[in-house]
Amino acid sequence: MRSGFPSEAQMIRTIQRIAGRAKDRRLPLPIGDDAAAFRTRPGFLILVSTDAVVEGTHFDLSYCSAEDVGWKALAVNLSDIAAMGGTPLYVTTSIALPRKGAADFLSRFYRGLTAIAREHLVTLIGGDTCRSTRGLFLDVTIIGEVKPAHMLTRRGAKPGDLLYVTGELGGSTIGLELLSRSRKLVPRSAAIRRHLRPQPRCAAGRFLAERKLASAMIDLSDGLSTDLGRLCEQSGVGALVESSQLPLAKIPAQQHRLLPNALLHYALHGGEDYELLFAVPQRLSRHVPSQIDGLRVCRIGRITRPTGIWLLDDQGKHRLHPGGFDHFA
Amino acid sequence: MRSGFPSEAQMIRTIQRIAGRAKDRRLPLPIGDDAAAFRTRPGFLILVSTDAVVEGTHFDLSYCSAEDVGWKALAVNLSDIAAMGGTPLYVTTSIALPRKGAADFLSRFYRGLTAIAREHLVTLIGGDTCRSTRGLFLDVTIIGEVKPAHMLTRRGAKPGDLLYVTGELGGSTIGLELLSRSRKLVPRSAAIRRHLRPQPRCAAGRFLAERKLASAMIDLSDGLSTDLGRLCEQSGVGALVESSQLPLAKIPAQQHRLLPNALLHYALHGGEDYELLFAVPQRLSRHVPSQIDGLRVCRIGRITRPTGIWLLDDQGKHRLHPGGFDHFA
Repeated sequence: MRSGFPSEAQMIRTIQRIAGRAKDRRLPLPIGDDAAAFRTRPGFLILVSTDAVVEGTHFDLSYCSAEDVGWKALAVNLSDIAAMGGTPLYVTTSIALPRKGAADFLSRFYRGLTAIAREHLVTLIGGDTCRSTRGLFLDVTIIGEVKPAHMLTRRGAKPGDLLYVTGELGGSTIGLELLSRSRKLVPRSAAIRRHLRPQPRCAAGRFLAERKLASAMIDLSDGLSTDLGRLCEQSGVGALVESSQLPLAKIPAQQHRLLPNALLHYALHGGEDYELLFAVPQRLSRHVPSQIDGLRVCRIGRITRPTGIWLLDDQGKHRLHPGGFDHFA
Repeated sequence: MRSGFPSEAQMIRTIQRIAGRAKDRRLPLPIGDDAAAFRTRPGFLILVSTDAVVEGTHFDLSYCSAEDVGWKALAVNLSDIAAMGGTPLYVTTSIALPRKGAADFLSRFYRGLTAIAREHLVTLIGGDTCRSTRGLFLDVTIIGEVKPAHMLTRRGAKPGDLLYVTGELGGSTIGLELLSRSRKLVPRSAAIRRHLRPQPRCAAGRFLAERKLASAMIDLSDGLSTDLGRLCEQSGVGALVESSQLPLAKIPAQQHRLLPNALLHYALHGGEDYELLFAVPQRLSRHVPSQIDGLRVCRIGRITRPTGIWLLDDQGKHRLHPGGFDHFA
């Protein structure tokens, strides 16, 4: 072992110590072979999603902890499985990091990651760690399963379907704004917790999938205006969003004054809320509950035959252009 | 779309144009949903492996092309599936890259990646692309399958088993040495091709697995002295390597003169050869062919009960310490 950087064997021991040895009977091997292996269940599709988390683009260690990074890196991937109506099962990590502080960062990162993994009964089955001279780069791959008849995709929304979202919109970007203004807001407000420790909506996604209520679904990673555009493009439809129906983030007045934009702006364009956006055929809409496991569900508009996304407010209809969070900007 | 950086939809079109639309009947969805999905085959385990490829650590664009990076990023992952005796099926990519030249890099990267994907009948099923302000980070996740009875791991080598390797050893690191001395060696020598375009040994891995010849297997990513140590540690055994039996890389004399170390040094410690190292019970050794599909197979030593790795040469036995390629150094 070279100074400062943990060896492969040390890494595996660290992960096993933090995550515990997996007791999943579908796993024939312990961590640390050339590949991880798992048994499949007959009649299920396997789902795979991968998301990079890059220092300077997705997080800044000046205002979040390594535990926060680990939590969020897995949360955003869980959200992808939720959006397919699936059940997350396994996770692998790939980490490139500078030598300085590597061992400390890794153990704290894995503490955050395994905290949310436990909540969702997800098992860490493998990964790769290497040195980076440029910055911290993390990539998490999630594996899940879903019955083919339950799988929800971005395709399938039909004109006339009603549009719903879970939870509240805009809170995560508001949290980021607050963090960028005062990096030591203690105790952390709900919006900041929301930004740093998002809660993927796996239970709601499964609820909708198993009852076959939704015709299409996507998770809100880049903002309503951007992700609704994606769902509509893939479904070949348009949408009308009713401004008055949007579940705006609830923010204390003294924080509200710090924000440069209106709450509506954050609800429309703010990214990283990781709520679910889904379409429901009208005949099924009476089966959509107002809450799923305590999580609010709001009807916010409907799917239209003409393409394009429109916002309806007191002044009439306006074209809604994608203005969401842009990891490429 | 912001200038210079491709949008998600453009990325997907680029990938589809280069990789072609998948015709695999196990894939119910086209690329571009929240997660990729695939059908499983009854009686098979799913294998997953992930490897990061980081600019400045694993490659340097001053002496390799974006196509080379794409090829190698998948090759090293295919090699992990080969080492388990499995068949690679699907690949996902995660890429963080600077805005400048992003579109050009991506299309060339995917050309290299899909070139080797086609050779191994592997399908690109998804990925993530984002901006990096720090450097180029790539992560590739490979998914494969293997029958439980055929799976080979690093555990299972027994005292008395004979040790074998495929191909030649040391060529890749020799290629890297030559590149670092003269970055414009045209035409590229075999050693340089070996470094930039490694050939994972999937066919040989499957051959050994399906015939149940090997008791343990690993791919040589970090050098014989390092990877043999891993196999022995996981199997709880030691090994004796016969120096005279090692298949040294064949290098033309005029290149040989440029190298600071002897060929034996590269064979023992040179990384990134991506050959297979495996143990075979003595009673099965007569079934191990001298070639598999034209690829040489050499017996290089044996597994011992005492732990520790030893090298036997004209002067006697020496302790062989891990001195391989170290991504953490």
